Amino acid sequence: RINSARLWDSLMEMAKIGPGVAGGNNRQTLTDADAEGRALFQSWCEAAGLTMGVDKMGTMFMRREGTEPDALPVYIGSHLDTQPTGGKYDGVLGVLAGLETLRTMNDLGIRTKHPIVLTNWANEEGARFAPAMLASGVFAGVHTLDYAYGRKDLEGKTYGAELERIGWKGGEEVGARKMHAYFEYHIEQGPILEAEEKTIGVVTHCQGLWWLEFTLTGKEAHTGSTPMAMRVNAGLAMARIFEMVQEVTMAAQPNAVGGVGQVTFSPNSRNVLPGTVVFTVDIRTVDQEKLDAMRAAIETRAAAICAELGVGCAVEAVGHFDPVTFTPELVGRVRAAAEKLGYSHMDIVSGAGHDACWAAKVAPTTMIMCPCVDGLSHNEAEEISPDWAAAGADVLLHAVLETAEV
Amino acid sequence: RINSARLWDSLMEMAKIGPGVAGGNNRQTLTDADAEGRALFQSWCEAAGLTMGVDKMGTMFMRREGTEPDALPVYIGSHLDTQPTGGKYDGVLGVLAGLETLRTMNDLGIRTKHPIVLTNWANEEGARFAPAMLASGVFAGVHTLDYAYGRKDLEGKTYGAELERIGWKGGEEVGARKMHAYFEYHIEQGPILEAEEKTIGVVTHCQGLWWLEFTLTGKEAHTGSTPMAMRVNAGLAMARIFEMVQEVTMAAQPNAVGGVGQVTFSPNSRNVLPGTVVFTVDIRTVDQEKLDAMRAAIETRAAAICAELGVGCAVEAVGHFDPVTFTPELVGRVRAAAEKLGYSHMDIVSGAGHDACWAAKVAPTTMIMCPCVDGLSHNEAEEISPDWAAAGADVLLHAVLETAEV
Ligand SMILES: NC(=O)NCCC(=O)O
Ligand SMILES: NC(=O)NCCC(=O)O
Repeated sequence: RINSARLWDSLMEMAKIGPGVAGGNNRQTLTDADAEGRALFQSWCEAAGLTMGVDKMGTMFMRREGTEPDALPVYIGSHLDTQPTGGKYDGVLGVLAGLETLRTMNDLGIRTKHPIVLTNWANEEGARFAPAMLASGVFAGVHTLDYAYGRKDLEGKTYGAELERIGWKGGEEVGARKMHAYFEYHIEQGPILEAEEKTIGVVTHCQGLWWLEFTLTGKEAHTGSTPMAMRVNAGLAMARIFEMVQEVTMAAQPNAVGGVGQVTFSPNSRNVLPGTVVFTVDIRTVDQEKLDAMRAAIETRAAAICAELGVGCAVEAVGHFDPVTFTPELVGRVRAAAEKLGYSHMDIVSGAGHDACWAAKVAPTTMIMCPCVDGLSHNEAEEISPDWAAAGADVLLHAVLETAEV
Repeated sequence: RINSARLWDSLMEMAKIGPGVAGGNNRQTLTDADAEGRALFQSWCEAAGLTMGVDKMGTMFMRREGTEPDALPVYIGSHLDTQPTGGKYDGVLGVLAGLETLRTMNDLGIRTKHPIVLTNWANEEGARFAPAMLASGVFAGVHTLDYAYGRKDLEGKTYGAELERIGWKGGEEVGARKMHAYFEYHIEQGPILEAEEKTIGVVTHCQGLWWLEFTLTGKEAHTGSTPMAMRVNAGLAMARIFEMVQEVTMAAQPNAVGGVGQVTFSPNSRNVLPGTVVFTVDIRTVDQEKLDAMRAAIETRAAAICAELGVGCAVEAVGHFDPVTFTPELVGRVRAAAEKLGYSHMDIVSGAGHDACWAAKVAPTTMIMCPCVDGLSHNEAEEISPDWAAAGADVLLHAVLETAEV
């Protein structure tokens, strides 16, 4: 079993970097806080005898040698970047639990046949630069490097320029590495494990996603002196689209979600009807057909809503992944490890996207989850217990040892 | 008649300061551009022999002596501040047409019994600091100076601090001046005069307004892993409130408007349901009872919408004025001047708020309007013709001479 106190200490140490405003973290991708978190992680890895590689997307790969150095490595990892008002565990737990499994192997003098590579994927959250899981997406050949470098934050700064600025642009070609397997451990970010009183989620699938960025074009005009009949009201069109997304999602129950997290009004003045309204609809379900039907319904109905109001409507898909089925053999190994260690467990579908979803395109892949309090994530109040954290790390250790062969 | 070419030249000269991105202006209150515009205006006034007073709100008063220096002055004016994507004429026309009438009096050697004071009211737009017409509101005793100094922009900077920073905090007590009468000339900002092919709007009333700032409190949570039933969706509540404001406004037709220009989502990340949504509803009508009934209906129905979704709902009135009836004697003088000069004219209700609405509380007051193309304002594409500009200035000149007594 891993050293639970050491894991927890590392989590608390990392949480000091990029503090939030309410006990959580703001360590967004490619900010100075991200660079600081990376440097701390690097120092810990080097102390554990790992050697570092960095690719052109800024993803960090920390290698522990195997007894057969030419055997394909087993990869484990997650991400250290956070939401603007993020929690201390989302992503970080998977990276630092990965480090803890390697520290434990060192303590116990365990050598594996396959090398093990601990990974900190860049820009998982997609909060600053859409889409989410950008670096693992380039790794899996889903995006080009040029596409990724050109992604912009709300201030117009690009991924490429910011990566250079923080000094974490590596030399390795992205995706050149071949994986024997990839394991990712993550908090559930939802309420199911806690409600079912299970300590371990054996992740069998991941929901697919569309991020549909709408740009509505109205007519900037005075809120007081513009009669109702003359308005080209992009704000009203947006409101109707929100309600329609809710309807489409409720009609797709069970096991479908839809909502909006980001909205920008321009010029955003109290007495000016907006000229432009930009917002992103986020829809997800594990059923491929249902996902695409939701997208089609939303685009068709949004176009009709806008047409009725005379509002211009453009839609760009700024994020997408298909539903994922994880590798049954690895899923079985996670289930067996939980069983052997005596942790209560259940099969579960990941509601959130993860780098594992892209890794699954190029390697046998699976995930492990632990509960989080009230199912809360993407919230500074995100919380887990040290016991939960440790249980998943134990399962990770055993599943990885099984796969990397002692 | 005034010098039309000189008036137009001054308008074009002022429009060079704080250029917008699409041919208009961004010369928001208490910015560096505002300071630059004020300095240019001051230099023109001094060249025309006017003497300056500045009050503690930063309002500029440029005085032309009368033959009876103790007679109460006739005030004319408007504002030089603009929306973030504002036009070249909104406010500016009234100030520079006022200057042009005084230049014309100088050219023709006209002396009036009453002094004439040309006024540039501070923060008319309310775009940067709500509410609109802030300085004239303090002047009329509607707001205290402390309230005004404490108003904050979206970055949290206060009116008081920014006024000091740009160096335009004067020593005069706000509202100490007494007015014989106040005239304000402004573009219509709506479509009526152009549609009716009238050159002059004789303004009889102004619509009353409420700005209701809603703060909705949802639960920040992951858009992917938070089931629909667990969401406390402040974005959806906002959408329903927008639709409800539209319904309430349509039910109040004719002669009522309602809409939303400003929205802020927090943390505003694509995969986070917002923890907080702040937006301002703007409702107006000239009928006092109807206005208050609209407000009551909106607040009651918004509370019900939020209660159903479990969303917290707080409302603050960040702007308000009652409907205004302008002084019949001065209205008659404007109508008579248009008649005498041979300009087509009609009586009209101001859709927008103006400093004249507050001045009307403390002095006999009225307004003059000219058309604007397509009724467009609060838009960089705002446009008027030099002939329209000149016609209103001629009417202003004659109505003011009648009132200030030659
Ligand atoms: N795990 C996680 O929050 N990833 C961000 C991408 C997503 O929105 O699912
Ligand atoms: N005239 C004008 O646009 N004033 C700003 C205040 C308002 O919104 O009516």
